[in-house]
This record gives sequence, C-alpha cells and structure tokens, in this order.
Amino acid sequence: MTSSSDAFQRFHAVIPAGGVGTRLWPLSRADAPKFLHDLTGSGTTLIRSTFERLTPVAQDRVLVVTGQKHREAVTAQIPELDDADLVLEPEPKDSAAAIGLAAAILHRRDPRIIMGSFAADQVIAPVDVFQEAVREAVATAATGRIVTIGIKPTYPATGFGYIRVGERYPADGAPHARHVIEFVEKPGEEAAQQYVDSGNYLWNAGMFVGPVALMLQHLARAEPELHAGLQEIAAAWDTEQREEVLQRVWPTLPKTAIDYAVAEPAAEAGDVAVIPGEFTWDDVGDFAAIARLNPAAHQESMTVLGTKPRVYSEDASGVVVSDTQRVVALIGVENIVVVDTEDALLVTTTDHAQSVKKAVEALKEKGDSDVL
Amino acid sequence: MTSSSDAFQRFHAVIPAGGVGTRLWPLSRADAPKFLHDLTGSGTTLIRSTFERLTPVAQDRVLVVTGQKHREAVTAQIPELDDADLVLEPEPKDSAAAIGLAAAILHRRDPRIIMGSFAADQVIAPVDVFQEAVREAVATAATGRIVTIGIKPTYPATGFGYIRVGERYPADGAPHARHVIEFVEKPGEEAAQQYVDSGNYLWNAGMFVGPVALMLQHLARAEPELHAGLQEIAAAWDTEQREEVLQRVWPTLPKTAIDYAVAEPAAEAGDVAVIPGEFTWDDVGDFAAIARLNPAAHQESMTVLGTKPRVYSEDASGVVVSDTQRVVALIGVENIVVVDTEDALLVTTTDHAQSVKKAVEALKEKGDSDVL
Repeated sequence: MTSSSDAFQRFHAVIPAGGVGTRLWPLSRADAPKFLHDLTGSGTTLIRSTFERLTPVAQDRVLVVTGQKHREAVTAQIPELDDADLVLEPEPKDSAAAIGLAAAILHRRDPRIIMGSFAADQVIAPVDVFQEAVREAVATAATGRIVTIGIKPTYPATGFGYIRVGERYPADGAPHARHVIEFVEKPGEEAAQQYVDSGNYLWNAGMFVGPVALMLQHLARAEPELHAGLQEIAAAWDTEQREEVLQRVWPTLPKTAIDYAVAEPAAEAGDVAVIPGEFTWDDVGDFAAIARLNPAAHQESMTVLGTKPRVYSEDASGVVVSDTQRVVALIGVENIVVVDTEDALLVTTTDHAQSVKKAVEALKEKGDSDVL
Repeated sequence: MTSSSDAFQRFHAVIPAGGVGTRLWPLSRADAPKFLHDLTGSGTTLIRSTFERLTPVAQDRVLVVTGQKHREAVTAQIPELDDADLVLEPEPKDSAAAIGLAAAILHRRDPRIIMGSFAADQVIAPVDVFQEAVREAVATAATGRIVTIGIKPTYPATGFGYIRVGERYPADGAPHARHVIEFVEKPGEEAAQQYVDSGNYLWNAGMFVGPVALMLQHLARAEPELHAGLQEIAAAWDTEQREEVLQRVWPTLPKTAIDYAVAEPAAEAGDVAVIPGEFTWDDVGDFAAIARLNPAAHQESMTVLGTKPRVYSEDASGVVVSDTQRVVALIGVENIVVVDTEDALLVTTTDHAQSVKKAVEALKEKGDSDVL
C-alpha cells in the first residue's frame, strides 16, 4: 500500500450544512435553508449533489453537520447516512464549532484521520476535475498540511476572500500543490482587480482538507475555550452522555468562523498548502447566481426553476423560481427575479439580488417573521 | 309639476354589468369581473359606486343587467335591488342586446320612461358634477333626443371613441346641451391630437340617456332582428313564460354594440344631443389606470390595493394589487405592476399594462384557462 492510497483510506468528508441563505429568501428560509433546494434545475438538492460529488473519493466516510431541526430533511436527502454519520447541532454556532466538532469526534474515533470540509450549498462542475483536486488535497494533507482548494478567479469578485499563493509545494500525488502565503479578506474593487491581474490569488471557497490532529492543534492555539468545549463534547459523543454534555456545553461555545479559528493562524504558521481548482464554482449567494447558473433552459431568455412551473413570459428576461402551482405571467420585464412561494412573494431584479438580505431584516423588524 | 320634474320621475337608470376586464387579469376574470372589484381603494366595488352615484338622481328606479352567474355577487353588492330590478342574461350578447332588453322591458312597463345607461365599471369624480350632467341629460332627453354625456379630453387618447359636438341644443334645464354631429371611432395619434386641439370633440364614455321609445325605434331600424327578439323576450318578461322565451330566443340574438345599433344611426338622423361632462372619468382599462387612480396612498411611491396587503418595498414604484395574505417584497423595480391572487400572479410594468390581454389569450391557448 502506498502512502497516498493509505491517505485516501483515512480520508473522511465532512459536510457542514448550515447557513440559511438569507439572500435567497423567500425560497430559502430558517425551516428550509438553501442546501435543501435544487437551485440548478438538476433535479437534485444542493446537499445531495455535494454528497454525490464526494462519495467517489470518500466512499461511505461522509459526516454531515447540521441543525437538529434539519435531521429529517437531511436524511431524506441522504438516506445513506447512519446515526454515526450525523452531527446534529442544538443551535447554530458558526463554522468553527461545526467543523471543529466534526474534527474532534473523528479524532476520537481515529487520530490519523484526514478530514475534508465542503459546504453543502455550493455548485461545482465538472465534478471529475473537482474530485481530482480533492485527491491532490488529500495527498498533500498526508504530508502534514492543512490544504485548501482555491478557485481560479474569473472576475474581480469583491464578495469572496482570496488566497495568496506561493511557491510549488512538493507532495507525492499532488503535482499542482502550492504553498499558501496568506488568506486575505474580501477586497475592494481595485484590490480585487489587482489580485486577478497578478495571477497569484485564488478565491477562498472555504474548502479545507487536513489531518484532524493538525486542525485541532491550530484550533486549540487560536480558540482554546472553543477547543476545550468541543473536546468535552467529543469525549461524550459516542457514549450515553452525548445529549447531556451537548446540551450543557454547546450553548456556551463562542461563535467564530473556521477561517479565523484554524485556516488563518495555520497559514501564518506556514502550515497551509493549496490546490488550485480548475473547475467552475459558485456559492449561489443570491438570485443573480441562480440566473447565471441556469442559462434560460426552459423558455426564451427566462430561467424557470420549480417543481411544476406554469410560467408565461412575453418580452421578459430573468429568473422565476416557483414553489407553487400558480400561473405566473411576466410581461415586459427585463432581468426580473420572481420568487413565488406559498406565503411570500419576491419581485426584484438580478442587479438588486444582494439587497434581498436587507428586505429580510426589514420584514423581521416589521413583525413579519412568520415568513422568514 | 313642471315638465322637467316630470321627466325626472320617468327616469330609470340602467347599469349594464358585463365585460370581464381582460386587461385587469388575474384580478378580474370570468367569475369575478372588473365591476365586482374595488379598484380605487375606496372600500367599495365599482358596481356599488356606480349604483350610489345614480340613486340621488334615479332614486330606486335602477335596473342592473348582468350575467345569470353574477346574480349572487351583484345582489350582495346591491341588496337594494329586488327581482324586478334585475335583468339576468343567460350568456353575454354584447351591449346592444343588454341595453336593448332593458329598454324593451321598461317600455312594456311604461312607454314614457326615459332610461339612462351607465356602465358598472367606471370611476367618476366629483360625483355631484356627474349628477348635474345626468340631470341635464334627462331634461334634454325629455325633448325627444338620445343624449350622451361626453368627457372633455385631458390628453389625445387613442383608446376611446370621440363625439363631434355641434351647435348649442336648446332645452329647458340643460344649459350645456349641444347637438352631436357624429360619433367617431378610436382615432390614430395624429387625429386624436387634432380632436383635442380643436376643442370640438369629447370622449365617448358610453353613457346614453333617452326615451325608451326612441331608443327602440332606432334599434328597430338598425337591427330589426335583434329588436324583434328583444321585444319577444320583453313581452314575456313579467310573466311566467319569461324563462322559456329567454332560453329559446336569447341564444339566437346577434351580438353588436349599442354604439352601432342605436347611437350612431340616431346621430345620423340628427336625434342625438350631448352634455359635456366636466368631471374626471376613467374606465379603468388596465393596471396603469389603477396606478393613475390611486396615487401611492399607502407607501412611498407604491400604490397598494387589497384587503390585507403585507407589502414591503425598497427603491420600488408602481402598483401592487393583492388578493391574498402573502407577504410581497419589491426591491429595485420601477413602475412595476404586481397582481397577486390565489392561483395566478402577474408581473408587468405600467408601460406594458395593455399587453395583459395578449397574455390572457396566450394562456387560453396553452390550456391554462382554469385561471382565466
């Protein structure tokens, strides 16, 4: 057995299924978050697609971290999961707690495990190019590094963080691995343009592959309180004390992002490598993304998503997402976004897709939270 | 008793409540036509407003002509109507049959009656100015003329017919009466501008006041078959044979407009006068009219109509008509028209309001007539 095929045997995929996706309201909401929707017209929810994208590499070694209230919806989407593959959070505590708990539980089960964390609500193609990048990441992680998969930017995005890429990182089975110099926060437009022009920056897609022991080591240094709490929960996880400890400790945990708690400190310590991803990637951040990802498949210049959409359009372009059986008629509206659900309707344009979050906040203030 | 107070005693108002109002779909539809809606945010349906506008002149002498299937909805709106005040059509046969039947029935009851026909789905203000015009029309009709009330044009409309006004017509109690030279069809833009500039043209609002005997005389000459059929039905109307005769004869009647069957031939014969109406008038032809008639009463630059609208708007203008309890969020859309009903949703702009009819025709062809 070679060292890298051993590494693949130790590889576990972790799927944090968290964020509501506020900018996708009223489709996505607290009870039906983004990852439970089919936003690409593929016939498959984002979380199911994520699972299917990972199993060719991870086989049955997949763990999903999600909210307790999403248990049924998640297992309906992924019936392959058994109880040991589900980490259910009593309440959202941000990504460091979610991914850290998965790391701590896996570390208890086998300290040699290499984990890879991949969000449940991203869209990636082609899948085989992604899988090859994951394989390179696992091979690189096996050398004792935390490895991120960075995305080659296609435009100067200001909505993503960037990864500054260094020299080639030598690793068997990972011909494209590079050192990471640093992670940089979401830039302004000018800086974003410079990053793209330089060719030395990749988008940070939040994909992290690394030995659980190394992940926990950096977590312990950057967030000792969080690390201690997660270790206490992990120690009780596969015992009868799980619920008692979880209910007592989880609410006390600090909320922070995995980027701050692990990735950035690890990069400063020179412990992070990157595999440049040559696949297309989208985090489906808003309805403009949905229009982008679904190039008007069903009607002239109109993207239509939904189970049984009955859409009539005339001199119209944009995207309709229909969660109902209603007839939707669109006349003379350009770049329109119409999201039609049982109890809420959104009408906006692709240019204003980012403002949806603001609307949701305003509705919350107005007391209309029954539809959020 | 003076002759004009005698004329008022003989005056009966007829309200034809017909047209579906296709350009107001999906609010207005076959089962819930335009006249059954409150399109002005007044809290009152158009037909109820029409009734209340006429009773100060006609007292309880009001007849409504409508479809048999609208009987309940109409009497719910106007509980003052008794059976003798309701003329129920088995199926729509256009305005000449509807108004002609009312004339024939009233003529049977009293051949000296002066009738005035006023559509159920128009918006008029101020009401007292309208009523004064009706009184002048009745006084003029008493001299043996069919009298229309024409509207002073406020812009060169191409969607209405026009009335070419002649010399002053001498009639006691009607200081503003004028001869009508002719009715002209909906003009092109250039002709419409000329009409408005000349000051000699009024909009034809389809309001006709005249002795029933004279109305029937012109109908008999222009549409002898229709006249004969209506007389046969009218003879049976206040008898036990009504239903039998109605069901047998009505389906055979030709469909035509009162303008062709009575008004235009009467004008050619020099039998038509006009009272210029100094009130504002709108036939609420489309959703642009609704925006015009309801100047953003409830929210910044957004007109909101409906029983319990829950509308959130941001950088948006236009009109929302909500027939549901749903939350409607509008972000960054200008001059938008959103009509939200249980089974159908329309999104268009005020500029495209006239195209709604085309959409309805397309939906009919597509087999979506369950929502029409």
